[in-house]
Amino acid sequence: MSASLKTLHELAAALAAGTTTSVRLVEDALARIEQHRAGGGVAYREIDAESALLAAHASDQARKAGYVPGALAGLPVSVKDLFDVQGQVSKAGSIALNNAAPASQDAVAVARLRQAGAILLGRTNMSEFAFSGLGLNPHYGTPRAPHDEARVAGGSSSGAAVSVALGMAAAALGTDTGGSIRIPSAFCGLTGFKPTAHRVPLAGALPLSSSLDSIGPLAVSVACCAAFDAAISGQTLDARPADIRGLRLYVTRDLVCDGMDEEVAQAFEASLQKLSKAGATIVPFSLRELRELPRINASGGLTAAEAWTWHRKLLQAQGTCYDHRVAQRIRRGAEQSATDYIEVLAARRRLQAVAAERLRDADAWLMPTVAIKPPLVAFVERDDEAFFETNSLVLRNPSVVNFLDGCAVSLPTGEPGIGVSVCGLRDQDARVLQISASAQLHAFV
Amino acid sequence: MSASLKTLHELAAALAAGTTTSVRLVEDALARIEQHRAGGGVAYREIDAESALLAAHASDQARKAGYVPGALAGLPVSVKDLFDVQGQVSKAGSIALNNAAPASQDAVAVARLRQAGAILLGRTNMSEFAFSGLGLNPHYGTPRAPHDEARVAGGSSSGAAVSVALGMAAAALGTDTGGSIRIPSAFCGLTGFKPTAHRVPLAGALPLSSSLDSIGPLAVSVACCAAFDAAISGQTLDARPADIRGLRLYVTRDLVCDGMDEEVAQAFEASLQKLSKAGATIVPFSLRELRELPRINASGGLTAAEAWTWHRKLLQAQGTCYDHRVAQRIRRGAEQSATDYIEVLAARRRLQAVAAERLRDADAWLMPTVAIKPPLVAFVERDDEAFFETNSLVLRNPSVVNFLDGCAVSLPTGEPGIGVSVCGLRDQDARVLQISASAQLHAFV
Repeated sequence: MSASLKTLHELAAALAAGTTTSVRLVEDALARIEQHRAGGGVAYREIDAESALLAAHASDQARKAGYVPGALAGLPVSVKDLFDVQGQVSKAGSIALNNAAPASQDAVAVARLRQAGAILLGRTNMSEFAFSGLGLNPHYGTPRAPHDEARVAGGSSSGAAVSVALGMAAAALGTDTGGSIRIPSAFCGLTGFKPTAHRVPLAGALPLSSSLDSIGPLAVSVACCAAFDAAISGQTLDARPADIRGLRLYVTRDLVCDGMDEEVAQAFEASLQKLSKAGATIVPFSLRELRELPRINASGGLTAAEAWTWHRKLLQAQGTCYDHRVAQRIRRGAEQSATDYIEVLAARRRLQAVAAERLRDADAWLMPTVAIKPPLVAFVERDDEAFFETNSLVLRNPSVVNFLDGCAVSLPTGEPGIGVSVCGLRDQDARVLQISASAQLHAFV
Repeated sequence: MSASLKTLHELAAALAAGTTTSVRLVEDALARIEQHRAGGGVAYREIDAESALLAAHASDQARKAGYVPGALAGLPVSVKDLFDVQGQVSKAGSIALNNAAPASQDAVAVARLRQAGAILLGRTNMSEFAFSGLGLNPHYGTPRAPHDEARVAGGSSSGAAVSVALGMAAAALGTDTGGSIRIPSAFCGLTGFKPTAHRVPLAGALPLSSSLDSIGPLAVSVACCAAFDAAISGQTLDARPADIRGLRLYVTRDLVCDGMDEEVAQAFEASLQKLSKAGATIVPFSLRELRELPRINASGGLTAAEAWTWHRKLLQAQGTCYDHRVAQRIRRGAEQSATDYIEVLAARRRLQAVAAERLRDADAWLMPTVAIKPPLVAFVERDDEAFFETNSLVLRNPSVVNFLDGCAVSLPTGEPGIGVSVCGLRDQDARVLQISASAQLHAFV
């Protein structure tokens, strides 16, 4: 966890102690946003300065009167541009929805953030319609990795990550269909939690893939993620750090360790060594069936089919407005037959059964969140081949977890732009948070 | 329940009292099968006389020694031709699988029946590949309704129903994708239980529609169905009759009461009156959204898409062997796009939400199992138009429950060939059994 950034608990404690106020936190964040924008930063697509300050003021008043709705009370958060916020247009990083009607009500996750007392600062930039892992956006600009502005921040929750990494929000609401929370978390030195998909209702979030979409936080620590998740899921999990001694942490080299950058390989091995030294048992295991994934998804997989179903009318009307790299990938769904789709679902069930069997005795399993360091913007913008190849490699590891309907936390390793993921299967969210918290405490930074 | 047929509990009591033996029950059933066949009956496609007698003998020996594995111990049952039984070829009422390899192991449901001590008598005839509700079979002949041999027995579990109705099995293992247990139960004067699909594992059952298939019993009473379900699901439900006084039984006239035969309408109204007289409250409710079903399934729905996925290679190799009426319906799946399929799934979720909302205060809801009496074989074999129109009408009511992923029991009304269904939503199986048992006790013959 980054030393310079404050956790939600530190901020909440400061509010409780009266050493700061919600208004001051919001003003600070707004000042940093202004500075960021002045320097050409594009993390936010839209700012709600006025309403945020009003809400912060009310929060401070309520606190004085003894009313504190929850762990997020008075804390400024950012919202990814695909969530409905009453009165705002959900553009999802696109210009194809410029004439859409403003949302008539908050998305469930947004409404729950408000109920928990969080202050909504604005809408964060993203890969158009969440359909890429790099965060390139030709309409609103491409957010950059904080440690190296020549590199991408990762996507699709690109602005979300930068908003937290640069202190422009205490935590960010993101979505993850194939890594869209974990990739930018890794690239920007944050902790990102992709919960089991059904934990947080998708209502009011513009869908990419109804089978794979999930909603979660990008934040400063595992404990921050757990507090944020409790608010948006409506269910508080026991996320206290696990006793690391004797934890069985499984590691497969199949697929997820192919083609790693040397620095990523070193950071990953160093993390394993630290965990081992702290008392965990690293258990190598085979999951060679992961190598079937490229073939299983050759037709575009669940994402293209489900995205096409949602987008086909909009593409017809506004197709020329789309980033051509996004439109091209969505259009693959038009070619898929019902049988293609059914066979992907059947392969998913088979792979889930295999993973459950192999991981039966595991407390969690680990992988490098992304096999490569954040790529250079200039490289991935060079041509479509570079883009598609890099995008595919960046999404490869985290998307395994979505395909399995599992959950995962990406932890920053301390090496800039490099994360390690603690993964679990469906509904193992509490255990994954406990083990991530323990790993963060003992082995990372 | 039919007065002449014995319930599983009566048979088990007779075995326990020593007034009969499993060998005698099996011999009696085999004798009736022989008589049935001699008269041209086609309920069974294959008989396992020798192994059944051996098993019955072993069961009697075990009982003498004090070992009675369960409620079905020593009782002869029939198995629908689509279940794997070790060493037998699962033909599913077709000739296209004549050269298939024998099953290397039992289907889960079959293995559990054996574990519960049931004696497997043989494989029952069915609509080819379970894809029709009438039970016509051009390869092995069409089973007839016991009360009127000019009429169909209903399908697809046609032979299963006849095997029980004519005392050729104490209960039958069937499957239900759109009414295949409930239709023949209604047409043959039996009680049939379609559980929530996930209750009984589908492994080892030749699939029709992986989204809609479910496995359950055709038997003599609700209590028989509950005992049989406990064995094949591995989970015993509390199926004691509910207190009928004040039960809120919901009835919609939307869709399910369209185009009823006069006798069916009368029998349904008479049943409602009896239930009301016994103390239940009949609550009319609107579910007009059911009228969207024909449009939702216009492309062939989940069944055609999923059946095509399984059958396409076999159709290519052996298509000329198929009943053309079955092949034609499966081939509709070839035309479906992934988007068509995804939209059916989305419509399903919408209709499930509507039904859950409307039925929030219901203890169960009722419908005529089938809107018409068993049709004449001569009529539905006249031409394809008569077949497709009648088949579609016969499946219409029960398939609503599969689409909702719910559960239902079809109860015989006492009027030959006419059943009333007690229906519930997903996982309301225990309540549906309790209410069915109560209705059977108080209001149905």
